[in-house]
Amino acid sequence: MSQTTSPYPLLERIIVPSDLREIPEAQLDQVCQELRDFIIDVVSVKGGHFGASLGVVELTVALHYVFNTPYDQLVWDVGHQAYGHKILTGRRENFHTNRLYKGLSGFPKRSESEYDTFGVGHSSTSIGGALGMAVASKLKGELDRHTVAVIGDGAMTAGMAFEALNHGGTANSDLLVVLNDNCMSIDPNVGALKEYLTDITTSQSYNKVKDEVWKLLGKVSKFGPNAQAIAQKVENAVKAALLKQSNLFESLQFRYFGPVDGHDVERLVKVLRDLKDIPGPKILHAVTMKGKGYKPAEDGSPTVWHSPGLFNKETGEIIKVLPKSPQPPKYQDVFGHTIVELAEKNPKIVGVTPAMPSGCSLNIMMKAMPDRAFDVGIAEQHAVTFSAGMATQGLIPFCNIYSSFMQRAYDQVVHDVALQNLHVVLCLDRGGLAGADGPTHHGAFDIAYFRCIPNMIVSAPMNEEELRNLMYTAQLRDNGPFSIRYPRGEGVMTEWKTPFREITIGTGRKLRSGNDIAVLSIGHIGNIAAKGIDALQAEGYSVAHYDIRFAKPIDEMLLHEVFGKFKHVITIEDGSIMGGMGSAVLEFMADHGYQAQVKRLGIPDHFIEHGTQKELYTECGFDDVALVAAVKEMLPAVSKGNRASA
Amino acid sequence: MSQTTSPYPLLERIIVPSDLREIPEAQLDQVCQELRDFIIDVVSVKGGHFGASLGVVELTVALHYVFNTPYDQLVWDVGHQAYGHKILTGRRENFHTNRLYKGLSGFPKRSESEYDTFGVGHSSTSIGGALGMAVASKLKGELDRHTVAVIGDGAMTAGMAFEALNHGGTANSDLLVVLNDNCMSIDPNVGALKEYLTDITTSQSYNKVKDEVWKLLGKVSKFGPNAQAIAQKVENAVKAALLKQSNLFESLQFRYFGPVDGHDVERLVKVLRDLKDIPGPKILHAVTMKGKGYKPAEDGSPTVWHSPGLFNKETGEIIKVLPKSPQPPKYQDVFGHTIVELAEKNPKIVGVTPAMPSGCSLNIMMKAMPDRAFDVGIAEQHAVTFSAGMATQGLIPFCNIYSSFMQRAYDQVVHDVALQNLHVVLCLDRGGLAGADGPTHHGAFDIAYFRCIPNMIVSAPMNEEELRNLMYTAQLRDNGPFSIRYPRGEGVMTEWKTPFREITIGTGRKLRSGNDIAVLSIGHIGNIAAKGIDALQAEGYSVAHYDIRFAKPIDEMLLHEVFGKFKHVITIEDGSIMGGMGSAVLEFMADHGYQAQVKRLGIPDHFIEHGTQKELYTECGFDDVALVAAVKEMLPAVSKGNRASA
Repeated sequence: MSQTTSPYPLLERIIVPSDLREIPEAQLDQVCQELRDFIIDVVSVKGGHFGASLGVVELTVALHYVFNTPYDQLVWDVGHQAYGHKILTGRRENFHTNRLYKGLSGFPKRSESEYDTFGVGHSSTSIGGALGMAVASKLKGELDRHTVAVIGDGAMTAGMAFEALNHGGTANSDLLVVLNDNCMSIDPNVGALKEYLTDITTSQSYNKVKDEVWKLLGKVSKFGPNAQAIAQKVENAVKAALLKQSNLFESLQFRYFGPVDGHDVERLVKVLRDLKDIPGPKILHAVTMKGKGYKPAEDGSPTVWHSPGLFNKETGEIIKVLPKSPQPPKYQDVFGHTIVELAEKNPKIVGVTPAMPSGCSLNIMMKAMPDRAFDVGIAEQHAVTFSAGMATQGLIPFCNIYSSFMQRAYDQVVHDVALQNLHVVLCLDRGGLAGADGPTHHGAFDIAYFRCIPNMIVSAPMNEEELRNLMYTAQLRDNGPFSIRYPRGEGVMTEWKTPFREITIGTGRKLRSGNDIAVLSIGHIGNIAAKGIDALQAEGYSVAHYDIRFAKPIDEMLLHEVFGKFKHVITIEDGSIMGGMGSAVLEFMADHGYQAQVKRLGIPDHFIEHGTQKELYTECGFDDVALVAAVKEMLPAVSKGNRASA
Repeated sequence: MSQTTSPYPLLERIIVPSDLREIPEAQLDQVCQELRDFIIDVVSVKGGHFGASLGVVELTVALHYVFNTPYDQLVWDVGHQAYGHKILTGRRENFHTNRLYKGLSGFPKRSESEYDTFGVGHSSTSIGGALGMAVASKLKGELDRHTVAVIGDGAMTAGMAFEALNHGGTANSDLLVVLNDNCMSIDPNVGALKEYLTDITTSQSYNKVKDEVWKLLGKVSKFGPNAQAIAQKVENAVKAALLKQSNLFESLQFRYFGPVDGHDVERLVKVLRDLKDIPGPKILHAVTMKGKGYKPAEDGSPTVWHSPGLFNKETGEIIKVLPKSPQPPKYQDVFGHTIVELAEKNPKIVGVTPAMPSGCSLNIMMKAMPDRAFDVGIAEQHAVTFSAGMATQGLIPFCNIYSSFMQRAYDQVVHDVALQNLHVVLCLDRGGLAGADGPTHHGAFDIAYFRCIPNMIVSAPMNEEELRNLMYTAQLRDNGPFSIRYPRGEGVMTEWKTPFREITIGTGRKLRSGNDIAVLSIGHIGNIAAKGIDALQAEGYSVAHYDIRFAKPIDEMLLHEVFGKFKHVITIEDGSIMGGMGSAVLEFMADHGYQAQVKRLGIPDHFIEHGTQKELYTECGFDDVALVAAVKEMLPAVSKGNRASA
């Protein structure tokens, strides 16, 4: 036995949950402490999601302790809180690779572990997925198999969670839903459900009823001195009745238990054991605290500590590497500042976000003009239809939704906005490969799925100035949807607060003339293409570069110029090549009888895993190096000397 | 004054709702009677939705009587119940054109009338849309302007309705939601919410509490003879407390009123007048009956009377024109019978529908094997994720959703099914132009929006046998999503119960050889293309015809054959030409360096209104006549004589 003392003596004995289940109950507190320390140790130096996983340490330990995972099935909603789960299920040794290229995924993922029963990333899928598992288990006769979904109170506001509860209440299953109530999404939760949960937790409903009964019995005191004793009994009856008959979840035929302290592991173990034997659909309401057990996170802003980056674990100081020279801003901040600037001039502009005010920087507007900026909760569908409703009144909503989350509002964009040709500006943050969050968060499909919708304008700015001008242009119209997609991360301009200029809708830009080949790019990736073209130029190639800017309507005059002149064309986009901007170019060619060799670079037809954006551009073959290679492959016979004189 | 007695003396005085508001309250009963008669008279001979509109006659009259429409804004959910609304708002004279080509839309539509505040067709958009209007009115300072959403209990189960309630409960608005509770979607409603509403309506919750309090007070009878008097008071207190504090809608901070009799127009007028003055979000729960006031509909199946076709209004006999010879079945029925046939042999197969068992014919399986067929309510998102959950357990769900409704489950298809490569078979009924239901119901975009999703198989059968074989093939795999889209209406085979045969995934079929030009079709529209090709053949053109069958993966061997031989190619699909099958063909050409003249026929890039499918194929230019014209345009120089010998 080694002489060095491990900081995680119990944790190190747990390779898989069956090891955990051999540890005496009295030591679970220590397991939780070690698990929490381990997460702090790794995340402080490696980065990643933080507050959410700390908040469910006890729940994670208790669930794996009581349930026979992986035979019993545990579904984590969203999954950024599942670090403890990963560490307890065979991935402690690899946990330092979390969210790195080729490393562990930041979310549960079926291909990574048999303990990851359902791949997650987007919110609110857990109840429906787990219900499917539970119903299937019953159908297959696996009557001893338990299914548990763990869902946050924020995720509970999304419609699909409600749909699943409505079905689950009457479906034949023993599903257990653990409601992890921490009053937070990434940002503080909003909406009536949140207030309702707070209300349950602080027993206000119950207290109100109690007060009324007391008041009543005061009035009937003429009935004798025993009234108070009666009142006590009545109070209990009313309490029982309220909890049993009238709880929101009980209304949906889920038996409701709680609220319980989500940080008392021994109590959780006891409660979960009891619930195991109770048939039918049920909800355990556990109250937890994001960042629990790490003082700086407990005391600080939960939004900051959601994913704080690196930090000094002793002091809680978040490590910020300050650049020596001014850096370009994030696109999201350009959006956030610009919408305020525009809204100051145009009183019709309002802002809408489904629970991502800090993620998309609408929080800037929420602070500056709280009446005109709306956080509607995790509710993409509603965000779009609510925007459509406001647009019918002549307002101009800028509805900001991450590209991959916009998939949830697809029908609302088609049916409520585009079909009615309403003036809603759809801003798609995280368009293209999103980086470390991986395939659930890549915004790969938006150009393809928006391009087929009539009335839709599909645009993407190449830099900050273009984003500002597209936003400016979008609010000048008097009807119709206008979409603007831009990537996660920084732009390219340090001096980005340029004066507004209207852009003619459906026009691109020629960035560079050339003779041998034309490169057509859309959006920010054009900057990386430009780098490749610089390299080619240095080698003597004469490459024209066009920023297409609008995938729809596409700039036909520009394309006539391109196909009138070039026999070799490369399209490049940070989006699906199947159906994307490149396909729009092919459609133009077919419609106008042009013939040319066209190569499309972009996200290929398979799901792309996580990594830095740079790593993923390289993997997908649309970084500057890949562009150089593609050009050389198309123009193979030409040597450098020839090119310069061509 | 005319001597003839009009059957609608009051109704004829109402051109717009302000005319209605001049009629004395005591005569509203008669207005309702006339309105009901008018609907019966027209629908019995012209067809259309029926039961839903009869059920809201009194609500319609009361709402327009009390509220100052169109300044006050009325949003009808789904909208097939809005016939009465249309008749009272300037469209009585044109109502006989309802659902006909170039006639009135079967749904409210902004471009048709200022009284149609929000275009509808898909379910559950009304609360979010109306909330947007109400919030906008407040922002604009129009404090006297009222907004009312009318939503059915079925539509209330969809997630986006819940999202809107969750937001509406805390947003600053005076929104009134009228819950039109008739216990039905097209099919009877399912799920916990339905049972909850029945529970409220029949006061079971309240009765249960009352019983418990009585029981309790029985036990405390030693407190004296006044116990019963106390009990009466307590009962009232508990009732008030339950309704105020613990109602599901009150949980979401909507004030709840009701239930009220939705067929008592005078009472409705009174209640609505009271509610007008109550600020904040509120729900009026009105209990109605589909088909109310028309005995055959009241007594018969609400599903049958949802949209009964033509009927003899005196006898209630639904007019069925029996064909003289056997006719091809509807595609939906081929699906319904075939899934049962397959499920009898393969115990892994289960069926899922979001509230359309009769619309997609899954009701056949629900009857034959009730344990294995699931109606999950109006909840497309949940239908897909629930299917994904079952697929993780090795079951093979066939999840049937209309093409245009699948737009609501787009993210779930990407994130929960395709990304995890789960074996879910997605059957898209009503793929392509849907006919009289119009633009909200056309399944125009599915090929485009599914084709960009990795792992997805996108197929469309040309006839019944192909549908059966695709379904058979889909269940033979062991993973991955498989989509099969087919249109509304009948196929082409009278003898359709053919033996099952596996189809190699990603292969098309050559239907006819030819020399001048190749026509590539996908799906049922291939039959109409074949008719055009017959006509061309008769004129001496030599036209090859290929059934592409899979838009993804597309049959590359077949396309090599096509582009190796033909310089003229026409693609034809009952789907968006932007990003559709034709674009997939263009992508293949670009990737393989083929050059040919390609013309794509399909649904153009604007929204298509309602009409018969035949009328719309003609309008969109992809019927047989249009194909003939397109071929002749591509081969202009060639005369008939030349063709035969070419």
